[in-house]
Amino acid sequence: MSPFPVPEYWHEHRVSYGETDTMGVLYYAEYLHIFERSRNGWVRAFGTPYKAIEERGLFLPVREAGCRYRHSARYDDLVQVRTGVNQWRRASLTFLYEVYDESRGRLLAEGFTQHACVDGTGRPLAWPSWFLEIFRPACSGESA
Amino acid sequence: MSPFPVPEYWHEHRVSYGETDTMGVLYYAEYLHIFERSRNGWVRAFGTPYKAIEERGLFLPVREAGCRYRHSARYDDLVQVRTGVNQWRRASLTFLYEVYDESRGRLLAEGFTQHACVDGTGRPLAWPSWFLEIFRPACSGESA
Amino acid sequence: MSPFPVPEYWHEHRVSYGETDTMGVLYYAEYLHIFERSRNGWVRAFGTPYKAIEERGLFLPVREAGCRYRHSARYDDLVQVRTGVNQWRRASLTFLYEVYDESRGRLLAEGFTQHACVDGTGRPLAWPSWFLEIFRPACSGESA
Amino acid sequence: MSPFPVPEYWHEHRVSYGETDTMGVLYYAEYLHIFERSRNGWVRAFGTPYKAIEERGLFLPVREAGCRYRHSARYDDLVQVRTGVNQWRRASLTFLYEVYDESRGRLLAEGFTQHACVDGTGRPLAWPSWFLEIFRPACSGESA
Repeated sequence: MSPFPVPEYWHEHRVSYGETDTMGVLYYAEYLHIFERSRNGWVRAFGTPYKAIEERGLFLPVREAGCRYRHSARYDDLVQVRTGVNQWRRASLTFLYEVYDESRGRLLAEGFTQHACVDGTGRPLAWPSWFLEIFRPACSGESA
Repeated sequence: MSPFPVPEYWHEHRVSYGETDTMGVLYYAEYLHIFERSRNGWVRAFGTPYKAIEERGLFLPVREAGCRYRHSARYDDLVQVRTGVNQWRRASLTFLYEVYDESRGRLLAEGFTQHACVDGTGRPLAWPSWFLEIFRPACSGESA
Repeated sequence: MSPFPVPEYWHEHRVSYGETDTMGVLYYAEYLHIFERSRNGWVRAFGTPYKAIEERGLFLPVREAGCRYRHSARYDDLVQVRTGVNQWRRASLTFLYEVYDESRGRLLAEGFTQHACVDGTGRPLAWPSWFLEIFRPACSGESA
Repeated sequence: MSPFPVPEYWHEHRVSYGETDTMGVLYYAEYLHIFERSRNGWVRAFGTPYKAIEERGLFLPVREAGCRYRHSARYDDLVQVRTGVNQWRRASLTFLYEVYDESRGRLLAEGFTQHACVDGTGRPLAWPSWFLEIFRPACSGESA
């Protein structure tokens, strides 16, 4: 198994009542919301807020997503989400996520999202130079 | 108590696992999603799809919403939602909702949403004549 | 208008993409999720985590909720939610919420939730003495 | 590519405003809610409601989920979801989903969920005989 890609960003999330289900656990679709919050944090921390990216006409819609659920999270649990980017391709990139319990000692779930790089009409783009410049430190960090 | 406004529209909704919470019941915020589905049904049945309204430049954002929760709904319950309009004002309208169990014999919750009439920039509008024309039968039905 | 009840708790919330809708704003049902997060914070700050309350056999289901929407919140906005308790009754209590923009200078929405005090079977209870003891400082602060 | 497993179940879903996001499309996490609705339909149609399965002490939590997003769905779109089971293993089963537009002519998304078979404490079980009996017609249909 390969090491988690650097730079990594940790996002903390408190499980709310509304995110749980009748089994008393964090509902499986909610992990994708938490992934979104986590990658927003990564993008903000290592480049610029995603909102600013969209304002410049670049969009990163999700093309594929997946998650393995190993252990449940329950109401009021404070989960810790580790986020990184493991693939920069010509017109897409892939985020990885690991969801841990509060102590970061137990892996609860792990997942990924693959994003296309498109313009406002949905047409695929190569990464613009301004984008690469902003995220170059993070990209080059990958092999650190 | 005044009678439920006519015309009324009934929307049927099956409670999913993802809509329930740790208490095993339909989470309170989910009622507002179900209200939306119900009023979409009313608008479609007695006028034109809400999407077509927006395409003509008219928007009906929610200005106020409320709900009283009397009895719980649980996973897999088939709830029946009665919807009507009880106030048409110069630049707003109000929907009423009653959520019943499958037999329509037991009232589980009741609520309302008040909507402004605005243009694409959020500026308040009086109802356009094309809108009144489309919904006139429903409006006049009010006093039936 | 009466002053906001003390003690007050401020909850900060970053609007995610998944909470917004086609109009580009925070969807109206999402406020109720944010209210839940805020009152969880209040309960934790001025007493004990709500989870611990349930573990002692006391539940506080929502009996009524309402919200007035004054101005929109958009993706990536950092909203500030002020929370307090304005009514302690024999078997219920009411939380108030005010949602502000990041600077706390602009009121975006205000709402309330009324909660019953019930046991695990849903039967109404008067507040147990252990509960009152825990929250007495917060209760008595009400008249400060 | 292998043919879609039989028996198949079609679930129809109207995209609500609350399910869309700022890009104007069905948010990616919402597909997992729709998958749940679809597999509930399959389970009900070809065996017994999932609720009845839980009442007999058997639970089917999601162990893994994935989705490929090909084309967007928008507010008010009526999407058609095809659902089937493609793997029955000793202690798990896998559902497949295909989301189509209203005409069933355009594939919007495809996904899967893998479910464990556990008891009320989360301990893995082999499929109970009563369960196999109920779903045998659907299982054997697989090779049809």
